[in-house]
Amino acid sequence: METNNTAQEITATTYIISADALLEHWQGHRRLSRKVIEAFPEDQFYTFSIGGMRTYAELTMEMIGLAAPGIRGIAFGDWTFSEPVLDYSTPAPATKPEVLNLWDLITEYINNVWPQIPPQRFQEVEAAFGMYEDKIVGTVQYLIDNEIHHRAQGYVYLRALGVEPPAFWDRQ
Amino acid sequence: METNNTAQEITATTYIISADALLEHWQGHRRLSRKVIEAFPEDQFYTFSIGGMRTYAELTMEMIGLAAPGIRGIAFGDWTFSEPVLDYSTPAPATKPEVLNLWDLITEYINNVWPQIPPQRFQEVEAAFGMYEDKIVGTVQYLIDNEIHHRAQGYVYLRALGVEPPAFWDRQ
Repeated sequence: METNNTAQEITATTYIISADALLEHWQGHRRLSRKVIEAFPEDQFYTFSIGGMRTYAELTMEMIGLAAPGIRGIAFGDWTFSEPVLDYSTPAPATKPEVLNLWDLITEYINNVWPQIPPQRFQEVEAAFGMYEDKIVGTVQYLIDNEIHHRAQGYVYLRALGVEPPAFWDRQ
Repeated sequence: METNNTAQEITATTYIISADALLEHWQGHRRLSRKVIEAFPEDQFYTFSIGGMRTYAELTMEMIGLAAPGIRGIAFGDWTFSEPVLDYSTPAPATKPEVLNLWDLITEYINNVWPQIPPQRFQEVEAAFGMYEDKIVGTVQYLIDNEIHHRAQGYVYLRALGVEPPAFWDRQ
């Protein structure tokens, strides 16, 4: 709080969320998203959808395919899609355990890359994925929000399938 | 960026999101949520649901019923449910225009109350609504995330109804 006050005197703006806190916020959401993948019956994960929407496997691959090249671009400004990170359109691995394994690899990748982001980088304006111009911190927020958005669609799929989804507030 | 660097020297932590930016982030989401209410056919807004879930009118009233007492508690530490803010369980007004009117009143209320939040308040730990202990800034993030979550469920309802939902990235 001292800190914030000091920053405020300097800037006339109160900075309230730290990089560490935003990473933890993201990873909390990723833990919940992982539980939603786990909650899906294996077959329905790949086949069920409502109203012509994508399957939850496809929605999960969007999260994966944005997070992995996303964190690399966020840190290093390299927005290309190539190995070891995934193309947005990569099809889901054939089994849920493989998807969960991929999920965990990316969780680790994010944790490894995050501390390498130069502090001033968060305020730089850049076209994420070569397309979406925003402050880097805004791009991080977009990735988190997009994950919440598609995961919530998975909640409806689960309810429609008669499966109780994990509690929204549980980020452990 | 200068600012952040200075803060970082002081704190060994990089603060990356300001109070102003978080308010704008929230209001951007609220603008999108408003469009989702608008997109619903009037009758389906009150009646349609999937898998035993709440109607979109009920989900909207949760957003309203959390945002209004929420911002008051966030600013002033008063977490009671009473007029002029709404009880969580308040039923939706009978027409969509009335719901939108309520939505706009709360948008304005948030904008009025936000600048009254003492800067150090965001880092205080307090039981939001007397129940959910978190840093105040965490409670703000929770309200935003909860809105994204339930709004995304509205996207599935709209798709199931054959209605194209507003673009997720459009926050104007």
